[in-house]
Amino acid sequence: MSTKSPVIIDLKFDQEEVAAALKGAFPEREVINLLHPANRNRDLSGIDYAVVWRPSADLFSRAKDLKVVFSGGAGVDHVLTLPGLPDVPLVRFVDDTLTTRMSEWIVMQCLMHLRQHQAYEALRQKRIWRELPQPEAKDITVGIMGFGVLGQDSAQKLRALGFNVIGWSKSGRKAEDFETYDEKGLDAFLGRTDFLVGLLPLTPDTRDIYNTGLFTRLSRKGPFGAPVFINGGRGGSQVEADIVASVNDGTLRGASLDVFQQEPLPLESPFWSMDKVFMTPHAAAASDVAALFRHVAHQIGRLESGKPLEHLVDRSAGY
Amino acid sequence: MSTKSPVIIDLKFDQEEVAAALKGAFPEREVINLLHPANRNRDLSGIDYAVVWRPSADLFSRAKDLKVVFSGGAGVDHVLTLPGLPDVPLVRFVDDTLTTRMSEWIVMQCLMHLRQHQAYEALRQKRIWRELPQPEAKDITVGIMGFGVLGQDSAQKLRALGFNVIGWSKSGRKAEDFETYDEKGLDAFLGRTDFLVGLLPLTPDTRDIYNTGLFTRLSRKGPFGAPVFINGGRGGSQVEADIVASVNDGTLRGASLDVFQQEPLPLESPFWSMDKVFMTPHAAAASDVAALFRHVAHQIGRLESGKPLEHLVDRSAGY
Ligand SMILES: NC(=O)c1ccc[n+]([C@@H]2O[C@H](COP(=O)([O-])OP(=O)(O)OC[C@H]3O[C@@H](n4cnc5c(N)ncnc54)[C@H](OP(=O)(O)O)[C@@H]3O)[C@@H](O)[C@H]2O)c1
Ligand SMILES: NC(=O)c1ccc[n+]([C@@H]2O[C@H](COP(=O)([O-])OP(=O)(O)OC[C@H]3O[C@@H](n4cnc5c(N)ncnc54)[C@H](OP(=O)(O)O)[C@@H]3O)[C@@H](O)[C@H]2O)c1
Repeated sequence: MSTKSPVIIDLKFDQEEVAAALKGAFPEREVINLLHPANRNRDLSGIDYAVVWRPSADLFSRAKDLKVVFSGGAGVDHVLTLPGLPDVPLVRFVDDTLTTRMSEWIVMQCLMHLRQHQAYEALRQKRIWRELPQPEAKDITVGIMGFGVLGQDSAQKLRALGFNVIGWSKSGRKAEDFETYDEKGLDAFLGRTDFLVGLLPLTPDTRDIYNTGLFTRLSRKGPFGAPVFINGGRGGSQVEADIVASVNDGTLRGASLDVFQQEPLPLESPFWSMDKVFMTPHAAAASDVAALFRHVAHQIGRLESGKPLEHLVDRSAGY
Repeated sequence: MSTKSPVIIDLKFDQEEVAAALKGAFPEREVINLLHPANRNRDLSGIDYAVVWRPSADLFSRAKDLKVVFSGGAGVDHVLTLPGLPDVPLVRFVDDTLTTRMSEWIVMQCLMHLRQHQAYEALRQKRIWRELPQPEAKDITVGIMGFGVLGQDSAQKLRALGFNVIGWSKSGRKAEDFETYDEKGLDAFLGRTDFLVGLLPLTPDTRDIYNTGLFTRLSRKGPFGAPVFINGGRGGSQVEADIVASVNDGTLRGASLDVFQQEPLPLESPFWSMDKVFMTPHAAAASDVAALFRHVAHQIGRLESGKPLEHLVDRSAGY
């Protein structure tokens, strides 16, 4: 074992996957998997790094000398609220496998709404052979709220399929040649959006942001006459009672949800049985554990060779 | 009215759409819509052009002087078998709106199989919140049989989403930098294919080509352990009893069908209720009638200014 700091792993993921991914992941240093019973009383002082997702309550009191905390997920809302989180750099998980998967999910949801999958399924149930009038992707403007790593990759792939794409973010940051709006441009952005895609992080500013007030400002001028809402970000950003009511009264034509206010989704949620809502169990873009460890090893390597860490979270912004 | 030849329209499409699309479509010449009762006994001799889809049985005996026949669809299997079809150039319908729509449908079907939409729907029915192991697009090779206008456009869009794509065609024609196989390479092509996409025209050579013998030669080495079959070409190329049996016995993991041996699909077909089969009513890429007339006007313009017609059908090849 070298003199390099060990790395603490405290991930409430599938433990078989974690064990498999850990094999050879950190060849230069010791790995302390806290979910392994042997490490229950292990002294964690003097250790520089921890990789965490829903860690044990006493992690930060035991590991007092952490220099960097790595989030096991792309979103850090769960991490930022951890009691005792030390005031050290927090690195989030950014990786091609995760980004690609999210884009697969977003493109698939947009296509299912465009190609009227729900209406065709309903006809099929009744064994009715009937072709529906069919707009093309170019007739639809997809507006993406949260135009960061995930939002921009989805934008490119949606455009490859023919959709018009516009973006909204805090800064209104320009990205490639997409039209983007900043916080003040929200109304203009919503007024052009037929399919609203949510890829925002959960922060105090974005909590409950997807509500009836917002849905009513979306475009109704598109070929379907009513907008669609697709959320791959965080459930805490959506008011679920408003989504249910908006789908039922036609404010929304349909929705796709991968994330929910409470997960697992409670058995009594209306979403389980709403025909106009497609849902998946927070599965849009699972963190690939092997890729996570590659990313962590890469960042530790950068730090130890004097380079700056990437994908740092801005604590005051909350993402 | 000029001295330019009128154009005969005989399209068994939605007549409101046809009427709307005809407005201003051929400003330089008379339009004779055969489905209009006023044209029932109209003398059609001396007329150069007809645009047809399931035309009336006596069309070609009445319009004896046709110089070009235009197919109302991209596929010409229905046209080539018309009794009395004159031996003049036959132009098929090729258009961006049609190509784009087919690619939307193909990409959507590939994503629905990749992202296990059917399995998630089954879990949802039981209100089970469970994430499934999820391969990425890059873990899947999509093999496209029929690498023409539609096959190549789908290939590009599938690649943009991250899928590996290979193509098979009669000539093995190279297209961009896709790996392609010719007729003799069929076994090698099938052995690499996880998701088989059918975009072949229906000809004597391609009738019944999608059968158990072919399905058993597909790769079973992909992440799902069994292949998927997706047909957007023609139903006459598929042996439906073989698809049903192959899905039921696991030779195929699932299927997506837009076309059928008999259309409308008979009420007693098992496909209506097979969970592992997604289906649409020959709606993958409807001919946009306005676009059809633009294409016909453009081709007539070329011919009358001495340029060669495009998208000519090779009668001996059957497409
Ligand atoms: N469902 C899943 O499986 C899954 C998987 C991974 C991630 N996620 C979620 O997706 C989120 C986005 O990930 P990412 O990698 O794309 O994050 P990112 O690169 O940090 O991008 C975040 C985007 O949101 C914008 N934003 C943040 N707060 C805002 C506000 N108050 N108003 C307007 N715009 C705001 C940012 O604006 P600026 O550009 O101006 O900074 C940025 O464009 C994650 O935080 C996570 O919650 C979900
Ligand atoms: N479901 C729908 O809504 C819908 C809509 C439009 C079209 N379609 C169908 O899609 C078909 C394809 O359209 P397209 O515009 O792509 O046609 P295309 O440009 O003519 O391409 C046909 C392709 O099939 C290949 N091919 C033909 N016969 C073959 C054989 N016996 N063995 C191997 N390869 C063979 C051709 O090979 P080469 O390259 O060597 O010539 C070519 O690559 C149409 O014929 C139509 O039936 C369906």
